[in-house]
Amino acid sequence: MKQVYFDNAATTLIRDEVIKGMVEVMNGNYGNPSSSHSFGRSSKVLIEKSRKAIASHFNVSASEIIFTSGGTEADNLVLKSAVKDLGVRRIITSKIEHHAVLHTVQQLEVDYKINVSYVSLDKNGNVDFEHLENLLKTDDKTLVSLMHINNEIGNILDLRRTAKLCKENNVLFHTDAVQSVGHYNLDLQDIPVDFLAASAHKFHGPKGVGFAFIRKNSGLKPMIYGGEQERGLRAGTESVHNIVGMELALKAAYQNLEKEHQVVFGLKQYFIDKMKSEIPNPTFNGESENTENGTYTLVNVCLPVPPKKSAMLLFQLDLKGIACSKGSACQSGSSRNSHVLSEILNEDDLQKPSIRFSFSIYNTKAEVDYVVGVLKEFST
Amino acid sequence: MKQVYFDNAATTLIRDEVIKGMVEVMNGNYGNPSSSHSFGRSSKVLIEKSRKAIASHFNVSASEIIFTSGGTEADNLVLKSAVKDLGVRRIITSKIEHHAVLHTVQQLEVDYKINVSYVSLDKNGNVDFEHLENLLKTDDKTLVSLMHINNEIGNILDLRRTAKLCKENNVLFHTDAVQSVGHYNLDLQDIPVDFLAASAHKFHGPKGVGFAFIRKNSGLKPMIYGGEQERGLRAGTESVHNIVGMELALKAAYQNLEKEHQVVFGLKQYFIDKMKSEIPNPTFNGESENTENGTYTLVNVCLPVPPKKSAMLLFQLDLKGIACSKGSACQSGSSRNSHVLSEILNEDDLQKPSIRFSFSIYNTKAEVDYVVGVLKEFST
Ligand SMILES: Cc1ncc(COP(=O)(O)O)c(C=O)c1O
Ligand SMILES: Cc1ncc(COP(=O)(O)O)c(C=O)c1O
Repeated sequence: MKQVYFDNAATTLIRDEVIKGMVEVMNGNYGNPSSSHSFGRSSKVLIEKSRKAIASHFNVSASEIIFTSGGTEADNLVLKSAVKDLGVRRIITSKIEHHAVLHTVQQLEVDYKINVSYVSLDKNGNVDFEHLENLLKTDDKTLVSLMHINNEIGNILDLRRTAKLCKENNVLFHTDAVQSVGHYNLDLQDIPVDFLAASAHKFHGPKGVGFAFIRKNSGLKPMIYGGEQERGLRAGTESVHNIVGMELALKAAYQNLEKEHQVVFGLKQYFIDKMKSEIPNPTFNGESENTENGTYTLVNVCLPVPPKKSAMLLFQLDLKGIACSKGSACQSGSSRNSHVLSEILNEDDLQKPSIRFSFSIYNTKAEVDYVVGVLKEFST
Repeated sequence: MKQVYFDNAATTLIRDEVIKGMVEVMNGNYGNPSSSHSFGRSSKVLIEKSRKAIASHFNVSASEIIFTSGGTEADNLVLKSAVKDLGVRRIITSKIEHHAVLHTVQQLEVDYKINVSYVSLDKNGNVDFEHLENLLKTDDKTLVSLMHINNEIGNILDLRRTAKLCKENNVLFHTDAVQSVGHYNLDLQDIPVDFLAASAHKFHGPKGVGFAFIRKNSGLKPMIYGGEQERGLRAGTESVHNIVGMELALKAAYQNLEKEHQVVFGLKQYFIDKMKSEIPNPTFNGESENTENGTYTLVNVCLPVPPKKSAMLLFQLDLKGIACSKGSACQSGSSRNSHVLSEILNEDDLQKPSIRFSFSIYNTKAEVDYVVGVLKEFST
């Protein structure tokens, strides 16, 4: 059967060269990086080389990169330690953050009685900077946690502006950059974020590995205790093959960034144009149609499907071999309404099916033709 | 150069069939297990099949196995949630636990002002059960955390006896079984532990994956918040290839357990005999010489090396291509004294070099001959 994978914001296929590199590590370097003998040292070298290479993409120093088991752990590490160890008493975030941030903040609210404020969003889900500025006028030790690129609607936050605003107000700033690392260049000397979370499986790397950028002298402490790995900030034997795989994936991503950006953006634009010409009145949620404020990797489209066809839509697409996502696909059995769309759509539009299609260089225009053809059947 | 890897308690080489299986997953199954389409479902199936297979080795149900990024995370998850969510106010442990337990307990002591008691040990590092029984007579909600097999000296705890004692006293019992899972059969219906931690890289599986056994209805809550993965007990996109690799490694381990046990035990015994015949007065730390109370996988030997040669011993062994460990190798730059040996050796013996040699089926008697030959040079 024809299979089309348009769910690259949920996860991506692993590049061949990444798998190849991981296999080399698994075959040739099985020492524990904490062992002082030659087997251990060669694993240690692999990790430290990866750390240095990753750091260089963001113009930071290697000691500011802490490897984790993924984006979720990186978000948890930063948010929890900020409250527990840095004395943060107030978190400013938004209602359309990923659950890795939102659920963690809500838990901290219960456990530490911190104050949580949600910044207002405009009708497209963009941060209301005026409101943010007002919220920042506070005497409580505060952390702002706002994602760089929204995983459902693709909105891009002006990171530099946000970071500078936080700095001016003497407030810490964490950004979940899971959807942007590997897709956009980020110079963290120029953009003064304090913390950042990333995950390899979103840029054609392996699942179960990511990193936190933790700016020097931040005072952050570990969430997981044990050995002295990761300069004492994250205990546990390192997943050497996964770390090397992440580095290779990131290198490939940034080596080909311009070219691949154009290809993927071309696919998205082609999809949007085709949708508009073939289907009556599709609307695009958030900034996903916008070429400035929306990421080039995804669209989130609200379809004017007749109610009786609507319920079965995702199921039918799956039967036709099309992988896409209703709301966020980072959760099991997500038949519930998306918490992101609930914030920005009116009741009417929430009743209609909204679907996220997210693209990668491994997709083709022919796939777009096929998918739009199938969608057309349903919409008429 | 000749290379001999006698550090299998630090980590093990990955079986070929495990790497092969992981590559298949990475090539063929890149869906996010949380996605509801076919790509996602096939990844989900892989995880759930692995969970079921792993559970079956321990005679427990699949829902009691929670995948983690390793043994350290599993220990942290259990200990922290026991205090935070189950109301545990007192932890009974020992001074020779792995740092994944010891440092976590010490942190909980600071953060939650819990009471921590260390059970007395005999001169070989065995738990004093009389003392344990006395400690268990308490009204505070209590958790006992004692490892099954000590990673430095190989002492085996009588798990059934400990678990039953805890049950009789209405006390929770967690065991760090990182050194025994994949090396010993454990029937967790027969042994009433509440919680258990394991790590794949100790039984020829990949690094950066492990699991916690969490008995049904324990009430444990997550340490990492976000999506609904792992039945809500551990958020974060699953490392599908690592999980499948762990399952394959565990299957291979238990399929060949009897045979491989004999081979490895034979190597250890050969090493001990050879040491005794070639080297003047080696002594074996803890129960590492004992065939009943010590594991078949490792010996920890105290060498009567002249002081001026002693300092350079590990370094010299490394130069000769021999990988072994001074104290625990799960930590970087462990030139400090082992916290385990400090508990059981007298001042005199602590001055002498103690080295852990740990074996696997990939070792040979010829390697033992070579290593003992080299040790002989130093000891005379
Ligand atoms: C007894 C014991 N517990 C816990 C760990 C930590 O497990 P991991 O290396 O998977 O973090 C180790 C080894 O590193 C160990 O030997
Ligand atoms: C924006 C965002 N943050 C965090 C995560 C979680 O990262 P991970 O899947 O590595 O746990 C995801 C996706 O799963 C995401 O899209």
